[in-house]
Amino acid sequence: MRKHILVVPGDGIGQEVTQVGKKVLERVAEKFGHDFTYDEALIGHVAIEATGDPLPEETLVKMRSSDAILFGAVGHAKYDNDPNAKVRPEQGLLKMRKELGLFANLRPIKLFDELLASSSIKPEILKGSDILFFRELTGDVYFGEKKRTEDSASDLMIYHRYEVERIARKAFDAAMTRGKKLMSVDKANVLESSRLWREVVQEVSKDYPEVTVEHQFIDAAAMLLIKDPKRFDVVVLGNLFGDILTDEASQIAGSMGMLASASIGESTGVYEPIHGSAHDIAGKNLANPMASVLSAALLLDISFGLKEESEAVISAVDAVLKAGFRTGDIADENTPKEMILGTQEIGEEILKRI
Amino acid sequence: MRKHILVVPGDGIGQEVTQVGKKVLERVAEKFGHDFTYDEALIGHVAIEATGDPLPEETLVKMRSSDAILFGAVGHAKYDNDPNAKVRPEQGLLKMRKELGLFANLRPIKLFDELLASSSIKPEILKGSDILFFRELTGDVYFGEKKRTEDSASDLMIYHRYEVERIARKAFDAAMTRGKKLMSVDKANVLESSRLWREVVQEVSKDYPEVTVEHQFIDAAAMLLIKDPKRFDVVVLGNLFGDILTDEASQIAGSMGMLASASIGESTGVYEPIHGSAHDIAGKNLANPMASVLSAALLLDISFGLKEESEAVISAVDAVLKAGFRTGDIADENTPKEMILGTQEIGEEILKRI
Ligand SMILES: CC(C)[C@H](C(=O)O)[C@@H](O)C(=O)O
Ligand SMILES: CC(C)[C@H](C(=O)O)[C@@H](O)C(=O)O
Repeated sequence: MRKHILVVPGDGIGQEVTQVGKKVLERVAEKFGHDFTYDEALIGHVAIEATGDPLPEETLVKMRSSDAILFGAVGHAKYDNDPNAKVRPEQGLLKMRKELGLFANLRPIKLFDELLASSSIKPEILKGSDILFFRELTGDVYFGEKKRTEDSASDLMIYHRYEVERIARKAFDAAMTRGKKLMSVDKANVLESSRLWREVVQEVSKDYPEVTVEHQFIDAAAMLLIKDPKRFDVVVLGNLFGDILTDEASQIAGSMGMLASASIGESTGVYEPIHGSAHDIAGKNLANPMASVLSAALLLDISFGLKEESEAVISAVDAVLKAGFRTGDIADENTPKEMILGTQEIGEEILKRI
Repeated sequence: MRKHILVVPGDGIGQEVTQVGKKVLERVAEKFGHDFTYDEALIGHVAIEATGDPLPEETLVKMRSSDAILFGAVGHAKYDNDPNAKVRPEQGLLKMRKELGLFANLRPIKLFDELLASSSIKPEILKGSDILFFRELTGDVYFGEKKRTEDSASDLMIYHRYEVERIARKAFDAAMTRGKKLMSVDKANVLESSRLWREVVQEVSKDYPEVTVEHQFIDAAAMLLIKDPKRFDVVVLGNLFGDILTDEASQIAGSMGMLASASIGESTGVYEPIHGSAHDIAGKNLANPMASVLSAALLLDISFGLKEESEAVISAVDAVLKAGFRTGDIADENTPKEMILGTQEIGEEILKRI
């Protein structure tokens, strides 16, 4: 298979982990006889530094002409502590999502057995959890009109019917291939936009009579996720609630460093870790590259339909964990020092096993 | 001390647990020689059934003329599953908050040692956690303008400077009496209202040079709360983020059934469990009344300045737990059947120990 992949490492640890993700794609191509070509592009803080723009036109052009995008992370503390900064790395990320029509963000929470103990949640609560989040990604308060006056600031939380409908359909389709259970999360007891959300999900559900639908309020869901993660199977929710709940859910998988996501929609798909740029550990060979590696696996599966290749990558990660290797974030008191590897080194262990 | 207390049980288990809370106040008055008088009023679904209005004028009048309010819960599944219901129990709650100017919602997450094992989080992660949330309660997307068109629905997420400032001051004041650490939670990398929030918190912090301020994004905070709850001491955040994070935090205390809250502001304070109406267990003598009892303790402390009385109530709850008594929600595999009591019975055990 001939495919062109754009690598967009972005900021902080995005740089290091994405290189490992790319190597995994190269190894897959070699082993399975595919012809993958690569290009690279700037986004976020590094793009601002180089061009003044968090999403330069050149990057967007390259994105549109690629078959899939392997993405790192964006963000820099410099902007976070300056509420008045006009240009911000995140603007690049949000603009990319909007421009590429990436309305569906899939976040599978897959728990590797070897990491059961490394979560702060009890293993007996976690064991058997397997969640697939569908986070809406191009609407909600993220993209509604922003206003600033002398003494107030606002963001419009808005949903359109078609936006809810298309993400709901994706989630229902996925539910049909899994446990036929869907949880929709909103705050319909307070928010008008959530009431529309619930209404549309109820409408769409008529086309999926086999799927059992459960509606939860976001506050209750944030609680239940920790209390009883096995209650969750496929979950569909808006952009803001999805941002919060999926980060929280990372604790089910032991670490944010293990979680990949796929953003899909109208054209090219973007595959990225759910973790951020983590500048505190950037450039130190300390980051866990597995989320990027698993993002590469999602890319192979979803954008290229290469199931076997995708499975081979996931199995390699599993094998590395079974062999006892860890990065710092997923090590525990019982991990021998010599089994804690750097970004590069654990990447090599994964490559060897593909 | 002479005081007039309004009891507003509301819906579902609100009815049962609030009666226990009231008995505790009566017991305290008797034991410490105070003269508390009581009245009762309707809110929520029960008020809609009786008057058509989720917050009848009569209730509001009684609220305004009381010295403190012991509140239950509001909500009913009937409305939740009907996104088009025009009158809803929650409207009563929100209107009460607004009318009484209850801009600060204090949610202490206090962990009773005996309940360490009943959380889904590992005891070694939890041990030593002690968090005090300051949730802003009369602003944000809860009260911004709502709009509905044929194909869209929206809520305005808006904050005014003075709203952020007054809740921030309350939180900083509390931080000064505790660990001199304050975490402010927002989503300033995306939301304009959060950027104002962060700006104002930074400004107010200049008046509290001894307090160390940490800013976290809501997604990261939702993750960190589970990963490392001891990192949290005093936390200040907006209405929506506060709703989500405090419900999540209930898992630190083992159960929602243990958590009390105080809503204070311009006049009369309202004291209520953070749990909801839980209609599935309502009327069955199954609900845990401790959140209402601990709400009564907060009422004594905050509205009446009766520290010793408040401590006596908390100690009684502690003693009941130490004696091994549990309600269903906080029982675990090791709890002998005969130690699992009903709402009334565990209430009696608490009363005996005051
Ligand atoms: C960096 C930030 C703007 C982004 C978001 O909030 O969507 C991130 O948290 C994510 O989840 O991808
Ligand atoms: C019932 C609901 C409107 C309310 C809220 O969202 O504020 C509740 O969840 C709470 O936290 O008091």
